[in-house]
Amino acid sequence: MLTLFYAPGTCSLASHIALEMAGADYAAQRIDFSQNEQRSEAFLAINPKGRVPALRTPQGVISETPAILFYIAQSFPAARLAPLDDAFALAQLQSFNSYICSTLHVAHAHKFRGSRWADDPAAIEAMRQKVPETVGAAFDLIEQDLLRGPWVLGEPLSIGDAYLFTVAQWMEGDGLDMARYPRVLDHRKRMAALPAVQKVLAAAQ
Amino acid sequence: MLTLFYAPGTCSLASHIALEMAGADYAAQRIDFSQNEQRSEAFLAINPKGRVPALRTPQGVISETPAILFYIAQSFPAARLAPLDDAFALAQLQSFNSYICSTLHVAHAHKFRGSRWADDPAAIEAMRQKVPETVGAAFDLIEQDLLRGPWVLGEPLSIGDAYLFTVAQWMEGDGLDMARYPRVLDHRKRMAALPAVQKVLAAAQ
Repeated sequence: MLTLFYAPGTCSLASHIALEMAGADYAAQRIDFSQNEQRSEAFLAINPKGRVPALRTPQGVISETPAILFYIAQSFPAARLAPLDDAFALAQLQSFNSYICSTLHVAHAHKFRGSRWADDPAAIEAMRQKVPETVGAAFDLIEQDLLRGPWVLGEPLSIGDAYLFTVAQWMEGDGLDMARYPRVLDHRKRMAALPAVQKVLAAAQ
Repeated sequence: MLTLFYAPGTCSLASHIALEMAGADYAAQRIDFSQNEQRSEAFLAINPKGRVPALRTPQGVISETPAILFYIAQSFPAARLAPLDDAFALAQLQSFNSYICSTLHVAHAHKFRGSRWADDPAAIEAMRQKVPETVGAAFDLIEQDLLRGPWVLGEPLSIGDAYLFTVAQWMEGDGLDMARYPRVLDHRKRMAALPAVQKVLAAAQ
């Protein structure tokens, strides 16, 4: 049995959707950020990083979205959520997920989490102001280069689609010029229509 | 034939070492950052991100260190650089690499690349000042939790060791209190003694 520790509005949505797409038998346990539960002793014993997502497996806990997504794909091969036996195609998928994690999500984090990287309130405000530009640039690359269409890898659907859909939830809030991203928005719309995604969105509140 | 595009002092060192550890047949092509070659038309045609590393394969180009490292491990299975058939052990390795990429390397980048996330010179300076703390915190987690010893996964050596060795080159320059990291320093010393690492360090100037 797998248990996903999640919080609404965070990147844990990607792992949640992937579990559902995989047909996994899992439980989802909400971590209450309003109560700072991610820093509680009980949760730090599960994930010392004090972050979601964390996936508890029979062997131990996994953190970091790209690692969890790949674990799900590899553990449920019948769902074909990654091209496991094609090293180059898999590398393209891993590259996509790594870019979301280390560039796009990091850019987004400078909106509310600037205190991770500077102490001065003016500096934190300066970071916040640049978010539409930096997150926008990451979505430009996705729109123009990385998203093949209809899905991230072309066909079939993969863990990369769950991740893209997740970060695409943040676009309006990050102040992006939405007219620049017709292909990403089309992807978001088609993902939102999938039963697995609808089930997770209804449950993960 | 594989071609690695690299620059000295960057995280491309990890992919370079992994290629050598894998016994791969590869060429290494230096991108001259002093001439801003990473933004040249010729290189942007190879990697539109304008960054190293990039690995040219017969199928196309791969970017993002965690993806390149995994591609090398999967393409040269005899070198046993990742536990390919053990989903949980592999997830731990991928989680380690993802943490280096999206947390440790990102913290380090705030020293010289603050202009990615803010325009105000004072904000960029404020980011620079926090680097010893943020990079130090990432190495704390590695020292205390993530590095099992003697290698990242315990045994055997893996692509995670090439990555850790690479970012550990930056510790003194990032102003870390080196006395806090005896296990990381021991790892760095043992990695530096490996013939594959010595060969790359001599070649990648």
